[in-house]
Amino acid sequence: MINWNNLDTLEAFKELKETPLVDLNKVMSGEAGAERVKTYNIPMAEGLNYNFAAKKVDDTTLKALEKLATEAELSNKFAALYNGEVVNTGENRLVLHHMTRGQLGEAVNADGVDKRTFYTTQQKRIAEFADKVHNGAITNGAGEKFTTVVQIGIGGSDLGPRAMYIALENWAKKNNSFKMEAHFISNVDPDDASAVLASIDVAHSLFILVSKSGTTLETLTNESFVKNALKEAGLDPAKHMIAVTSETSPLAKSDDYLDAFYMDDYIGGRFSSTSSVGGAVLSLAFGPDVFADFLEGASAEDKLALNKDILKNPAMLDALIGVYERNVLGYECTAVLPYSQGLSRFPAHLQQLDMESNGKSVNRFNEPVNYPTGPVIFGEPGTNGQHSFYQLLHQGTNIVPLQFIGFKNSQLENDVTIQDSTSQQKLCANVAAQIVAFACGKDDENPNKTFKGGRPSSIITGDKLTPKSLGALLSHFENKVMFQGFLWNINSFDQEGVQLGKVLAKRVLAHDTDGALKVYSQMLGI
Amino acid sequence: MINWNNLDTLEAFKELKETPLVDLNKVMSGEAGAERVKTYNIPMAEGLNYNFAAKKVDDTTLKALEKLATEAELSNKFAALYNGEVVNTGENRLVLHHMTRGQLGEAVNADGVDKRTFYTTQQKRIAEFADKVHNGAITNGAGEKFTTVVQIGIGGSDLGPRAMYIALENWAKKNNSFKMEAHFISNVDPDDASAVLASIDVAHSLFILVSKSGTTLETLTNESFVKNALKEAGLDPAKHMIAVTSETSPLAKSDDYLDAFYMDDYIGGRFSSTSSVGGAVLSLAFGPDVFADFLEGASAEDKLALNKDILKNPAMLDALIGVYERNVLGYECTAVLPYSQGLSRFPAHLQQLDMESNGKSVNRFNEPVNYPTGPVIFGEPGTNGQHSFYQLLHQGTNIVPLQFIGFKNSQLENDVTIQDSTSQQKLCANVAAQIVAFACGKDDENPNKTFKGGRPSSIITGDKLTPKSLGALLSHFENKVMFQGFLWNINSFDQEGVQLGKVLAKRVLAHDTDGALKVYSQMLGI
Repeated sequence: MINWNNLDTLEAFKELKETPLVDLNKVMSGEAGAERVKTYNIPMAEGLNYNFAAKKVDDTTLKALEKLATEAELSNKFAALYNGEVVNTGENRLVLHHMTRGQLGEAVNADGVDKRTFYTTQQKRIAEFADKVHNGAITNGAGEKFTTVVQIGIGGSDLGPRAMYIALENWAKKNNSFKMEAHFISNVDPDDASAVLASIDVAHSLFILVSKSGTTLETLTNESFVKNALKEAGLDPAKHMIAVTSETSPLAKSDDYLDAFYMDDYIGGRFSSTSSVGGAVLSLAFGPDVFADFLEGASAEDKLALNKDILKNPAMLDALIGVYERNVLGYECTAVLPYSQGLSRFPAHLQQLDMESNGKSVNRFNEPVNYPTGPVIFGEPGTNGQHSFYQLLHQGTNIVPLQFIGFKNSQLENDVTIQDSTSQQKLCANVAAQIVAFACGKDDENPNKTFKGGRPSSIITGDKLTPKSLGALLSHFENKVMFQGFLWNINSFDQEGVQLGKVLAKRVLAHDTDGALKVYSQMLGI
Repeated sequence: MINWNNLDTLEAFKELKETPLVDLNKVMSGEAGAERVKTYNIPMAEGLNYNFAAKKVDDTTLKALEKLATEAELSNKFAALYNGEVVNTGENRLVLHHMTRGQLGEAVNADGVDKRTFYTTQQKRIAEFADKVHNGAITNGAGEKFTTVVQIGIGGSDLGPRAMYIALENWAKKNNSFKMEAHFISNVDPDDASAVLASIDVAHSLFILVSKSGTTLETLTNESFVKNALKEAGLDPAKHMIAVTSETSPLAKSDDYLDAFYMDDYIGGRFSSTSSVGGAVLSLAFGPDVFADFLEGASAEDKLALNKDILKNPAMLDALIGVYERNVLGYECTAVLPYSQGLSRFPAHLQQLDMESNGKSVNRFNEPVNYPTGPVIFGEPGTNGQHSFYQLLHQGTNIVPLQFIGFKNSQLENDVTIQDSTSQQKLCANVAAQIVAFACGKDDENPNKTFKGGRPSSIITGDKLTPKSLGALLSHFENKVMFQGFLWNINSFDQEGVQLGKVLAKRVLAHDTDGALKVYSQMLGI
C-alpha cells in the first residue's frame, strides 16, 4: 500500500529545507575539492559515471535526500510501475516502457497478453524485416534495394528516434554498421516534407509512418505528402511504406503498408525510443544488433534504478538533487550540455521528455500543487554553447543548474594534434574547465571580470558514445524524470496541456471562430 | 549629454511597477479581445507586423513604458551608438553593425577610414569574388567549378550565418538563386569536422575560415583538420580557402588563402550576420543579390528603430515589454517559437544574441546591478514544439513569455490538401490557436484539463520568409536586445563571462592543474 503524498506534506522535505546551504566555491576548492570530486562519483552502466561533486550538496544534504527518497517511497512507486499498476491514473493506463528492454519485476499481463512477450515479439519482427530489407529479400517495386529510410512522426515519434539516430550515425559508419541513411519528416509546415523529399532518392526510400493512435494530424498530412510524391514518381505507395502504430489503430493491418509493427497505450511517446517507434528506424539504419545493444544499455541502467541506496542509484540521486534545486534553492531552469557532437539533438529530446512529463500544476489526484514542478530544459553541445549562451550562465543574474556529459574518446577516432593536444583533448579540457569555472568562479578587481561561481553542475562521463552507453544515458534521464514526478506527486505520463491548442486549431480550420481567434486567423490568411 | 542610469533609479520604472496588472484572460475575450488584436499591431518593414495584443499591457502600461523609454533616453543612446560613440565601454570600442547595412546618422571615421565605405567595400569585394566563383573565373586547382562552400567558425561566426543559410536555402532553391550548397564546421569535437568532411566533395569545396582575431582555438584547430583532408586528397589548401577576419589578424594578407575579406572590432560576433561573416557564405551560397536583399530588409527595419514614438518602433516596444515581464512580472525565460521550418535554427541564434549580450550582472560602469537582466532564451519551430515542451508552457507552474513568428505562405509553395485545408493553413491555424489558448485558457471541472491562461505572447506575422523579411526579422531582434541593454544600463557588447573557461582549459591542456580541476581532467583522460 503506497502513500501518494504531496512533496510539501513530507516531513523529510521540511527537514531538507532546514539543512544548511553548501558553499560550493568553498567545498570545491583546494585538496578537499579534489577529494570531493573523487568521492561524489557513482558508477553507472556501460562504463558511465555520474559525478555530482559540483552540486550544492554535502553529506548532511545527502542524508536528508535519502530520508526524502524513503518517505516518498520512490522505490515502491517504481516497483508499482514496472509490476503493472495503473500509474498513469489520468489516462487509466499502465506505464511499461521499461519492459521494451527487459523485465524488472513480475510478468505483466494486459490486453490478454504477456507484455514482455508482446514487446520482444515486435522487436523480433522488426529485426526480421530489417534483415530482409538489408539482404534484398524485401525491395522496391522494381526489385531494387532500399537505400534510405524516412520516419514520418512528430513529438515522441520524432525527437527521441532522431536524437538516437544522430547519436549513432558516425559510430555506425566507423564500425561498419551503417546500413541505410535515415531522414525525418515531422512539422506540418509543408516546407519540411518538401525539402526532405527533394533531398532523397524517393524510388529507393522506405517510409515509416509512426502514430500510436493513427490520427495525429501532422503525421497523416505528411503521409499524404509522401504518397503524392511517390505517385508522381510513378511508384506504388503501398510498396514503400510501413507503419508503427497500436494494434487498434486504423493503420494496423492495412493494405496501404508493406507491414505494420506495434506499440501500445502503455508506452508514452516521449518514452518510446526503445519501443517499435525507435526500433524500426534504428534497426533499418544500423541493423537489429545495434538496436539490441542500445536496449541492453538501457536495461543495464534500469537495473541500477532499482537500488534503494541513493548512492548506488544515479537516476534517483539526480532526481532528488534536481528537486532540491527546484524546490529549496528555487532554480527555474536546467541546461543540458553534452560535449559530444553526436549528442547535438539529445537536449531537444530531453526537453520534451522532461517538460512534457513534469510541466504540471496538479497532482495525480487532480488537485493543484503549491510548489514548483518541472524546470525549463534547454541546451546545445559544447564547445559550441561556450561561444553562445554561456555568458549568461557564468555572469547572468539567475543561476541555472547544469548537466554536462563528456566522453574520453571521439566516435570517428579521426583527430588532429595542434599545439600539443588533439581536438578530443581540447574538448575534454573545456568541459573539465567549465565545471570548475562555474563552481569556483574567480575574483577580479574589475567586477566585470569577476566570476561569482557557486553555479552547480553535474557531469556524466564515459569512454565513448556507443549504442550501449547511449542506451544507458537515455535510461538515466527517463528514470530521473520518473522519480521527480513521484516526488512532486504528479502524473508524468499524460499531457492534457496539449489538448486545448488542438481543439482551437480545428475550430480555426472549420472557420468556427469569433473574437481574438478570428482576427488572428485572418491575419494569418485563413 | 546622455544620462546612463540604472533601471531601478528611474522614476518611470517606479511608476511602471505601480501600474495596475492587466487581466489577460479578460482583455483577450469577446469582441473587446478582437478589437485589441486589431489595435495592438504595429507595421514592421518588408510586410511584417508586430502584434502585442496577447501581452499583459494596456494603454496605461503603454504610457508608463513610453515614459520609461523617454527617461531612459533610448533614442539618444541608439543615436550615440550609430553616430560612433564608444558604447562598448568595457572593450573601448564603437558598435557599428548597423553600418554594415546602411548609415543611420553621421559618417563615422575610425582607424583612419570612413566605416560605411569600409563595410560596403568588403561587401563589393565579396560580391565580385562570389560572381567569379559562380561563373568559373575562380576554380579549384584542376580548373573545375566549386560546388560547395564550408564555413569554419564558432559562436557568432557560426550560429547567425548558419541560421540565415537554413532560413533561405529552400527559398533560394524555389527562386533559382541557389548557387552552392553550404556546410558548417564549428565544434572542437573532432567528430564534427570529420563528419562534414566525409559528407562533401572536398575537391570541389571552398572553405571560409572565419575568426575576427585569427586566434580562436576551435576554428584554427578545425582549419588544420580541413587542411589535412585537402592534402590527403592531393589538393593545395591555399587554393581552397578564403579568410574572413580583421585586417590586423595573422590570417589577413596570408598566402594560405585565395583571398581575405575583412571585419573589424566594431562588429560583435553575435551581430555579424550582416557583415563579411555572413556575407561571404551567403553570397557564395545564394549570390550577392540575395545577400543585398537581406541587408536591405535589415536596413529598412533599422530605420523603424529610430522612431521616438514606441508605437511606431516595434523593436523598442518589444524591448520595453520584455523588461516589464522580466523586472515587474518576474518571468525568467522567453521562448522563441517560429511556425516556419526555415527558421528551425533561428531560436539558437537568438539564444546567443540575447543571452550573450544581456546575461550580465554589472552595469556599464562595472557596478553590480540589483535587478534581473537578460532572460534564458530557448525554442524550437512549431508545430514540433507543440508535441514537445508546450505541455509545460500551458500547464507548468512557471509562466514563460512567448515570441511567436508566422507567415501566410510557405517557401516552397508545394502543398497538399487534407480534410479541406492545406498544410500551410494547418500550420497557421495552429499558431493562431496557441496564442488564444495561452492567453485565455479554458475552465474544466477536472483541474487536470483546466488551462489557467494568462500566459503572454506576441507574434510577428508576414507574407513569406524571404531574404528581405529575414533581414527585417534579424534587425528587429538585434535592436530589441540593444534597447534592453540600454534599459538595464549594461554593456551588451562585451562577453567577459566566456574568459575564465578558456583560461582554465589552457591550464588543463598544459597539465598545470591541481585540486578538483586535476581530478576532473584525469576522469576525462587528460
